[in-house]
Amino acid sequence: MERTLTSVTTRRDGVASSAGSETIVLCESLSTETTCAPEFIDISDEVQRIVSDSGVQFGQVTVYSTHTTAAIKVNENEPLLLQDMARILNQLAPLHGEYEHNDFTRRTVNIEEGECRNGHAHCQHLFLSTSETIPIIDGRVSTGQWQRIFLVELDQPRQRRVLVNIVGVK
Amino acid sequence: MERTLTSVTTRRDGVASSAGSETIVLCESLSTETTCAPEFIDISDEVQRIVSDSGVQFGQVTVYSTHTTAAIKVNENEPLLLQDMARILNQLAPLHGEYEHNDFTRRTVNIEEGECRNGHAHCQHLFLSTSETIPIIDGRVSTGQWQRIFLVELDQPRQRRVLVNIVGVK
Amino acid sequence: MERTLTSVTTRRDGVASSAGSETIVLCESLSTETTCAPEFIDISDEVQRIVSDSGVQFGQVTVYSTHTTAAIKVNENEPLLLQDMARILNQLAPLHGEYEHNDFTRRTVNIEEGECRNGHAHCQHLFLSTSETIPIIDGRVSTGQWQRIFLVELDQPRQRRVLVNIVGVK
Repeated sequence: MERTLTSVTTRRDGVASSAGSETIVLCESLSTETTCAPEFIDISDEVQRIVSDSGVQFGQVTVYSTHTTAAIKVNENEPLLLQDMARILNQLAPLHGEYEHNDFTRRTVNIEEGECRNGHAHCQHLFLSTSETIPIIDGRVSTGQWQRIFLVELDQPRQRRVLVNIVGVK
Repeated sequence: MERTLTSVTTRRDGVASSAGSETIVLCESLSTETTCAPEFIDISDEVQRIVSDSGVQFGQVTVYSTHTTAAIKVNENEPLLLQDMARILNQLAPLHGEYEHNDFTRRTVNIEEGECRNGHAHCQHLFLSTSETIPIIDGRVSTGQWQRIFLVELDQPRQRRVLVNIVGVK
Repeated sequence: MERTLTSVTTRRDGVASSAGSETIVLCESLSTETTCAPEFIDISDEVQRIVSDSGVQFGQVTVYSTHTTAAIKVNENEPLLLQDMARILNQLAPLHGEYEHNDFTRRTVNIEEGECRNGHAHCQHLFLSTSETIPIIDGRVSTGQWQRIFLVELDQPRQRRVLVNIVGVK
């Protein structure tokens, strides 16, 4: 435990550079119907397809969840691992835990018809992110070998929308 | 728990596209004085105002905390929920827990006059992010219906500074 | 605990603005060999050097880990604090805990020769991010006084690669 900070030499490799081209800004949305929670929806192929269709060669793509109980996570698509992650999220903020947010007798704002008790889903979201930004190199979303992009459903089966926003050059 | 990974069909909706316009890069900072911890400061309206004033129609805005004990989180502005989140942060890294970082007899670096014991605040920050990047569509910060952008104070009342950085086109 | 949400006045300070310049998109990678886990590799100076060499004055830099068991975190480089953070990560997802992902008798995908038991590293990654995006102002990565950019190794000594992706103007 004493060696948490180590001085490690880094090596720079030139990768790509582009100047003088016309900037392209493009946003598309992905809509999907989730089926349970926690649920990991692998949207990597769709993100790559949007980048490919844009013609952008260099730049970046931001993957953004428009929800407060669904997050974006980049990790490995291995079914047993996703079960491990689901278990840890449930340990930290259990479905049947006590949440002030679920006490509708005290809530004063944002109550809708059919409001569901989803305090756990918001609290699980605390550990995750709403966006991830990934470089585009040679027209490819430059995720590493094991990286997949997930929309993570934390609440219940719902209609979800992810924005895929590209800024770059051809 | 067996169905954490489900194949869900996604549908693409064209949203917006822009090419050939002049790129605009603009950064403004928001300064604020926090009053307690954890404290959630809703800066959504200010971020939208900066985007509106910039004239940028498409692109993205990055909201960035310049601090190591204050984070950026996108979630719902519902007072009871924010209490739930504060409670969970305090469970994971309690204010009165033991932190090596608070042992000033062993610290060798970064000690300032009036240094306060804030190991818990740094460790709570571990679960949160320093930045979130949000698409701009038709001049609007494209947060979803319940999403609000928060600066989250984890330490004590302090002067805080958030950068709002826009890259986009008119 | 009742005052988690406070209305705090924010003040806007103009920082920087640029329009009409040529957009520059540039990506470099940093390669490094890690030595233990958790390990925090401070890559701030390298990121600044890449930004300086690019000539970009305004825009943003995205720091991106291409791995599922190594993350990007912005926090303070204080050795005792990094030990606190390592301890908390180990509490939440212990090295010697039980993970389905480590049960090679049941795994059906992504098994490689020499596959190591790293369920804990993936699960620790759940709390961290794959990317952070930082504004560039006047050619400087605009991290705050105590902020340093870390690649966080969560697995074992490995060869790691971080992408440093810049979008901006001169």
